[in-house]
Amino acid sequence: MSAHPFDAAIALQSREDGLFLGRTSPPYANFIGPYGGITAAQCLNAVLQHPQRLGDPVAFTINFAAAVADGEFLVRARPARTNRSTQHWIVEMLQGDEVVATATALTAVRRPTWGGHEAHLPEVPRPAEIQRTLRRGVAWMERYEMRFVLGMLPRDWDGSGGPESLSRLWVRDDPPRPLDFPSLAALCDVFFPRIWLRRARQTPLGTVSMTVYFHADAEELARAGTGYLLAQARGQGFGGGYFDHAAQVWHEGGSLLATTHQVMYYKE
Amino acid sequence: MSAHPFDAAIALQSREDGLFLGRTSPPYANFIGPYGGITAAQCLNAVLQHPQRLGDPVAFTINFAAAVADGEFLVRARPARTNRSTQHWIVEMLQGDEVVATATALTAVRRPTWGGHEAHLPEVPRPAEIQRTLRRGVAWMERYEMRFVLGMLPRDWDGSGGPESLSRLWVRDDPPRPLDFPSLAALCDVFFPRIWLRRARQTPLGTVSMTVYFHADAEELARAGTGYLLAQARGQGFGGGYFDHAAQVWHEGGSLLATTHQVMYYKE
Repeated sequence: MSAHPFDAAIALQSREDGLFLGRTSPPYANFIGPYGGITAAQCLNAVLQHPQRLGDPVAFTINFAAAVADGEFLVRARPARTNRSTQHWIVEMLQGDEVVATATALTAVRRPTWGGHEAHLPEVPRPAEIQRTLRRGVAWMERYEMRFVLGMLPRDWDGSGGPESLSRLWVRDDPPRPLDFPSLAALCDVFFPRIWLRRARQTPLGTVSMTVYFHADAEELARAGTGYLLAQARGQGFGGGYFDHAAQVWHEGGSLLATTHQVMYYKE
Repeated sequence: MSAHPFDAAIALQSREDGLFLGRTSPPYANFIGPYGGITAAQCLNAVLQHPQRLGDPVAFTINFAAAVADGEFLVRARPARTNRSTQHWIVEMLQGDEVVATATALTAVRRPTWGGHEAHLPEVPRPAEIQRTLRRGVAWMERYEMRFVLGMLPRDWDGSGGPESLSRLWVRDDPPRPLDFPSLAALCDVFFPRIWLRRARQTPLGTVSMTVYFHADAEELARAGTGYLLAQARGQGFGGGYFDHAAQVWHEGGSLLATTHQVMYYKE
């Protein structure tokens, strides 16, 4: 059996001293360059593959500095600070002499404590009750099975739009793949641009920065298996060529797995 | 007239090649080490003072890697990628040979576009209708005039807590100081830990990562002047020693100035 396209896409060859070689993956291609989520997963994977890594990811921020060209890239992951149970990482993705992405990560050995999520899974129909949304056109969209509950793409690109950009969808890898930190990070970028819902116009745009906070450890993610995740996003501020959204990702069992935020550039 | 304590606290001496010397500031002391917001402002200020800086801050993430000791520190700010109208920064704060904070920033030349904020100023009483909250105990709390609308600290630390951790407060620098990017970044850390509202227990904790998205350019911030800001925060996920919150900051005139998120470590 051949590797899952996600595993093939995030595979890295370790070079000397925290340097990893990877290459872009056609199954995760976007309109221009790769899907941002796969770039995020590649950067996070360099941290996870690093021999000095301590603990699991807790916080991860990636900045998309330039279009990633098709072909090879290097990821340099450096533990800037290692404490007893936490570690802070600085990551750069390079093509030739150019930085195409920067990232920071916090990994930590998590310990059992009091817990009680405050962001709750909204009341929504179950995945089986909702038709799969067909989103052909670019490769990466075929890598995710999406079932929209609310806030699907505008039917008509007629400039009408609306005052709110809340979306809710059930989503998982296609073909299904057991959840882990890289795939959850990738999935946090699955939301189409909020401004499309607000404006119903296909303005040129791109994500410039994304942050993911992980609310589950490796064991909890393993328990999530290949189940559906409910992903919810809502825009916040739009102006001066940039807008952001705040988002949450729950397992279908109800537990919060990640909260994530991103800011996108747009042109008009 | 002497400098405002905030200006004194974020003052940096430029050394060679993107290296800046600063020192911790007693007026912004926290229980242990400095107020995280002032560390954030110092890191952001190194970017702003850098001779190669292009544009204004759009996104800023700071990771608090270790307690900052009283005394001198160095901040190294490096433009990892400079595009036509955007620039990506990697920042490290150092004491001796140790990294105590890492940060990334995106600065950009913002251009007029369609805009329309979706996160609206909630309906709340005006600042003058609310008593100033006295929060003595640590120095930095005296650097902010706070008027709590909702979600003030628990009256009794009796372990009762509640299911929600929404807070809303009017806040500005004390003494008042015209708003700018460093002071807005600092103010984004003004929220006391959400877990205190959930648990009414003073568990040991500290912020490990904070992200700020700026929704205003320098001109808009200048127009905000010394007016009050409404700051709102709400917890999301709590478990395994870490929790996060999502927050928004509006000018009293109603415009969204920043959205911000952070994740805190807690002990039990």
